[in-house]
Amino acid sequence: MKITVLSGGVGGARFTRGLLAHLRTVLPGAPDAPAGTTAEVTVVANTGDDMWFRGVRVCPDLDTLMYTLGGAVHEDQGWGRREETTRTSTDLAAYGLGGEWFTLGDLDLATHLARTELLRTGLGLADVTARLCRRWSPGARLLPMTEQEVETHVEVDGPDGSPVLLHFEEWWVRHRAALPARRFVQVGLGPSQPGPGVLDALRDADVVVVPPSNPVVSVGTILAVPGVRDALRATRAPVVGVSPVIGGAPVRGMADACLRAIGVETSAAAVARHYGRRDEGGVLDAWLLDTADAAAAEELRAEGWVARAVPTLMTDVPTTARIAADALDLVAAGRR
Amino acid sequence: MKITVLSGGVGGARFTRGLLAHLRTVLPGAPDAPAGTTAEVTVVANTGDDMWFRGVRVCPDLDTLMYTLGGAVHEDQGWGRREETTRTSTDLAAYGLGGEWFTLGDLDLATHLARTELLRTGLGLADVTARLCRRWSPGARLLPMTEQEVETHVEVDGPDGSPVLLHFEEWWVRHRAALPARRFVQVGLGPSQPGPGVLDALRDADVVVVPPSNPVVSVGTILAVPGVRDALRATRAPVVGVSPVIGGAPVRGMADACLRAIGVETSAAAVARHYGRRDEGGVLDAWLLDTADAAAAEELRAEGWVARAVPTLMTDVPTTARIAADALDLVAAGRR
Repeated sequence: MKITVLSGGVGGARFTRGLLAHLRTVLPGAPDAPAGTTAEVTVVANTGDDMWFRGVRVCPDLDTLMYTLGGAVHEDQGWGRREETTRTSTDLAAYGLGGEWFTLGDLDLATHLARTELLRTGLGLADVTARLCRRWSPGARLLPMTEQEVETHVEVDGPDGSPVLLHFEEWWVRHRAALPARRFVQVGLGPSQPGPGVLDALRDADVVVVPPSNPVVSVGTILAVPGVRDALRATRAPVVGVSPVIGGAPVRGMADACLRAIGVETSAAAVARHYGRRDEGGVLDAWLLDTADAAAAEELRAEGWVARAVPTLMTDVPTTARIAADALDLVAAGRR
Repeated sequence: MKITVLSGGVGGARFTRGLLAHLRTVLPGAPDAPAGTTAEVTVVANTGDDMWFRGVRVCPDLDTLMYTLGGAVHEDQGWGRREETTRTSTDLAAYGLGGEWFTLGDLDLATHLARTELLRTGLGLADVTARLCRRWSPGARLLPMTEQEVETHVEVDGPDGSPVLLHFEEWWVRHRAALPARRFVQVGLGPSQPGPGVLDALRDADVVVVPPSNPVVSVGTILAVPGVRDALRATRAPVVGVSPVIGGAPVRGMADACLRAIGVETSAAAVARHYGRRDEGGVLDAWLLDTADAAAAEELRAEGWVARAVPTLMTDVPTTARIAADALDLVAAGRR
């Protein structure tokens, strides 16, 4: 079975880790594995948060995926490396060059230096990511949504009220998403193309999953890469989404600030409607919500959605594995 | 009094630190300061060991000078930062990209990242160095010998006997100068020019000092920058050198391997003759040797040199201050 996941950082990475854990229980060798079962997971990762910083290429979502699936992530934080230190960044701050709002961890910096060195040899980001993943054995194929430098910027009010563009990371990390966003602009999106393997991964999938990632700046950015939305609409695979909103609040992060900027209510039902159903021109076939949103599930079903409410809080890997199983189960009937 | 020093890394940096300590004792406010004495020290630093490594610009001699004069150097080692760690380099090695023979310390890396970021804004290396020095207050002006990328390479025998060029740092650090050097090649030297302020610092000096740095790949490279040797010959200031060789061995490092490559004996007298006397077309007016080489001093004096043998082992700052005082004293009569 081929499964393709469209992922941002922490939420998508944790979901995918659970998905892989679930699949291991149904793979050959596992006690309850149907004979001949194999699974291949491809993650199409948002690269809209990527940036050049201190001369190195930082890819927050790819890194979070790599570290989470490779068992190196800082578990409490959800991103970055376990046992991380900040010797270099702290010392760098003493030069007073500015930009101190973003801290490069010493171990994380190694990844950025390696990535940058490989990019400078002329390799594309897909090959570079594959090369970095040799170290981490993430158990899934990680594909950047595009190899072009598409960077999400946020339009906010400047001091004099005129619009100012900030890199998404600056808005998110430095300003904690507290500056009201007028809109998001993907700089470089126009001429970009899906990265190598991305369209194939959507076309050849048996199931596509939209995990509980930020629907605006993570999944929304992947969908905005020319050709991706069409490929998702055209695939024979069913597409199932897991709500990143539980009981009117984002599970994690500041997705509500992003939803507000595009005029979407922070509710599990509103996010589902924002993605839309494939039979109505959207990108989803089914929607998994939390039991806290059971009423919304009923409402969506009344509108014609395939929707189910189950516990969706990804508290640990076994729990997340069950959520992934529930998501697959929701569209099992629709599989080829 | 204006003093200009032509320096490599450890030896030149330690000498300059001693020189500054000596000058502080004769500056206004010091008990034995002649009224109105002021001193201004300019160090012209070799940049031939510089290299791009992992995407950052590493300037070994400028860094050693900055850290030594700024009180941050790893004292026993002579270069790099005190309390250094190698978290990033160690982690980077796990990606297996090669190049592990060169270790970037975490604190040192901060300097390289800052330098590289400043260079990328379009500043020249002289301005960048001045900007970095704001943090370290070295007490002397540090000038790169050139702002162009002049990099010393070493020609050695390849596996099949044909000549191979290695970057100096690779030869020095990776191979510990153990591969016999056929010759040194300064890649990029031809079109290079002295860095901003270098020729003025030689012309306007009251004394020029050639400290106990490597005469081949440190001082020799500075002298090879088009215009520098002529400026040294033309300056009205006396030029005094301090021998980097004591009793037939380099005080530090592997300068003998470098001297051997250019056919110069590793002796205090041979190095003096290699530099040559200004009245005979060379670059020196006087030569300070160690008491272990008293016989060589006598020999040189018989040839017409101004030469003196004193203890020249730079064991600590006060001792080094006395050596600097001896060097200045040797040419005091020749000052404007």
